[in-house]
Amino acid sequence: MYEKVARNGLISRRHLLGMGATGVGAIASSEVLGADAGITFEIPSWSRTPGPGASAYGTRSRHAEYLRRTHAAANPTYPGGGSSRSPLQHLQGTITPNSLHFERHHAGIPDINPTGHKLVINGLVRQPLVFTYEDLLKYQMISRVYFLECAGNSGALLRGGNTNGTAQSLHGLVSCAEWTGVPLSTILDEAGILSDAKWVAAVGADAASMGRSVPIDKALDDVMIALYQNGEPIMPGQGYPMRLFCPGWEGNISVKWLTQIKLTRGPAQFRDETSKYTDTLPNRSSFQFSFPMGSKSLITSPSGQMSLERTGIYQITGIAWSGSGSIRRVEVSADGGQTWADAAIQGLQLGKALTRFSVPWEWNGSSAILQSRATDSRGNVQPTREATLVERGNISFYHNHCIQSWGVSNVGEVTNVYV
Amino acid sequence: MYEKVARNGLISRRHLLGMGATGVGAIASSEVLGADAGITFEIPSWSRTPGPGASAYGTRSRHAEYLRRTHAAANPTYPGGGSSRSPLQHLQGTITPNSLHFERHHAGIPDINPTGHKLVINGLVRQPLVFTYEDLLKYQMISRVYFLECAGNSGALLRGGNTNGTAQSLHGLVSCAEWTGVPLSTILDEAGILSDAKWVAAVGADAASMGRSVPIDKALDDVMIALYQNGEPIMPGQGYPMRLFCPGWEGNISVKWLTQIKLTRGPAQFRDETSKYTDTLPNRSSFQFSFPMGSKSLITSPSGQMSLERTGIYQITGIAWSGSGSIRRVEVSADGGQTWADAAIQGLQLGKALTRFSVPWEWNGSSAILQSRATDSRGNVQPTREATLVERGNISFYHNHCIQSWGVSNVGEVTNVYV
Repeated sequence: MYEKVARNGLISRRHLLGMGATGVGAIASSEVLGADAGITFEIPSWSRTPGPGASAYGTRSRHAEYLRRTHAAANPTYPGGGSSRSPLQHLQGTITPNSLHFERHHAGIPDINPTGHKLVINGLVRQPLVFTYEDLLKYQMISRVYFLECAGNSGALLRGGNTNGTAQSLHGLVSCAEWTGVPLSTILDEAGILSDAKWVAAVGADAASMGRSVPIDKALDDVMIALYQNGEPIMPGQGYPMRLFCPGWEGNISVKWLTQIKLTRGPAQFRDETSKYTDTLPNRSSFQFSFPMGSKSLITSPSGQMSLERTGIYQITGIAWSGSGSIRRVEVSADGGQTWADAAIQGLQLGKALTRFSVPWEWNGSSAILQSRATDSRGNVQPTREATLVERGNISFYHNHCIQSWGVSNVGEVTNVYV
Repeated sequence: MYEKVARNGLISRRHLLGMGATGVGAIASSEVLGADAGITFEIPSWSRTPGPGASAYGTRSRHAEYLRRTHAAANPTYPGGGSSRSPLQHLQGTITPNSLHFERHHAGIPDINPTGHKLVINGLVRQPLVFTYEDLLKYQMISRVYFLECAGNSGALLRGGNTNGTAQSLHGLVSCAEWTGVPLSTILDEAGILSDAKWVAAVGADAASMGRSVPIDKALDDVMIALYQNGEPIMPGQGYPMRLFCPGWEGNISVKWLTQIKLTRGPAQFRDETSKYTDTLPNRSSFQFSFPMGSKSLITSPSGQMSLERTGIYQITGIAWSGSGSIRRVEVSADGGQTWADAAIQGLQLGKALTRFSVPWEWNGSSAILQSRATDSRGNVQPTREATLVERGNISFYHNHCIQSWGVSNVGEVTNVYV
């Protein structure tokens, strides 16, 4: 009936794929509202009386409150530490609403009054500078849509298990927003970069004094001091009143609550770049400063803990991203990687930003393994888990961007599996 | 000192324009934090103890709560009616956060339970259809960034006055988001469009049964049934669980709480397209169905009720948009339209979406009149107020997209003026 583009039910998107095609949406005209059908539905209660009017600040429907970030309970030995994960399986498009953007904190969220916050630029500069929040607001800004992903996202997959994992629990440490701020290069040019400055040490105003080192080339390329997220001042959980933003690189380096930028000859070797955020290999040596996030994709629906309730057509949809450029291609497999079909790109296709893909799939009631594979604009292809384990082992779990597999059982249950 | 690009202080953006240049940001090194300077700031209270950890749903800083939509008090003779306006002067970039997107309601916000909501497709179709919310979620979706502007936005300017107006109070009925939903063409194709169907009548489930008629060509072009806004389900104030979205057209036609689509031979002549949303000309005849919003721009800073506290460099920034395409060019004048300079585009430059522009300006302490002028990809140039009044008169106030002027007095006070 449909033109197949890969085995086990992947269908050409040239087909019109409405509910009629799937047999669940076509309605007898006798059931239809309106004079021409002669029958009316009961008018629902919400259409009978006026509702409340306009408000100063909108809230979501109480029926949409199931969209929640998940996080571990507070740990008294690690006050304020931990992360929250975006509900990827319930989101659509490419932008993450600010309230649902993932978080990672090392000592909780400081309650910063911007009038008392300072940003210091010092070290190997001709003229040290101190900026207030108001000072920075006066600069010419740039706006860019970028993903942000925690280095540890999807790390659990290298070690196996997690049969009950969801898109959120396994991969929810990635989000995307329009970030607006001042190019770091503007500020550094103003301070005057001395010739032996090769690194930029960034420190946050949280109680952990979270610090990371950024090579000067990156700092002068596309790094910004972000002040706004999706149009409004960044939220406290994202670094209010200001954060560093290093596009495409592991999230931790985009230091929140930014209070100091110090130009140095070498990396600062902060606690957060020695005790954490290194990639230990099977031979026990470690990569340090492995910054860019890999070419990666994830099917968000169908995904873990969902159930397919009928055979027929489903829209496989998901997100793809790369820290090295834009997404050029996303392929989807329904047979565990034996055959692949190109997915459609659904909207924005920007560099270092989430890209939404979809492809129609006819589930015939037998078991299936759904996978997606991203290729970025530099030709980087998302690797298999097998290849990743051979190269990387599973001692560390950072920077895992391997192909992820959702198994669909013959009764339609979707679980995290490995192939 | 700076290369001038238009009279009265507009400066080439090729200049590095930091605080040092303006004389307010350069700090003596003795005031600077860090070992190399030998002096430390007092550590602020928020850096001394861990803050609260991750949460399920983020909120903004209490110091950012001044970003509020404004709206009139409730009117007992018009229950739930009215609008709220986005705080444009405090926003940055191009995306409007969902909680701050402008609203316009005709009978308030219905509290719709999506499991009880139905969307009916009927009229001149081969097969009438009824969809539940869950049905629609199964379709292949598209995601696009689009502005939405109320037909009445900026209308007060045609009549004069409003010296104390702000960007928000005069022009705050425009916002922008990434909208995700099902192309209306998909649904109509499935119902089967009969050959004499030339219009689509859309009705909302609010107590006003707000209705508008859309020509079939537009309906089959880029109209969608929107289900998500900036990644999450659209908020009740924006039409939860679903709204029509007609890109580039007056906001009212993007019917919220969409419950019926009826294909018809002619326009339905709903109350909302006869009593309102027509453009009455000086000769008392009226244009009806004047859908697309014009090529338009607005300076959001400096803007009404702001004060310039010093002479020196300011970043003039604002938004531009057109219902007929993308923004190709934005020019800015500081002398009331006598000379113009090209502004820089700060981020996304998409069709039928807000585009952010900026240009540096050196205020010398004398009076100035700031204007911006947009040109879209079809060559439509934003008209002057004078030309608009000649052509349109001021009996009606819809679809005003004329050039807007902010006056800067010689003590730096910014007010809405006319030239």
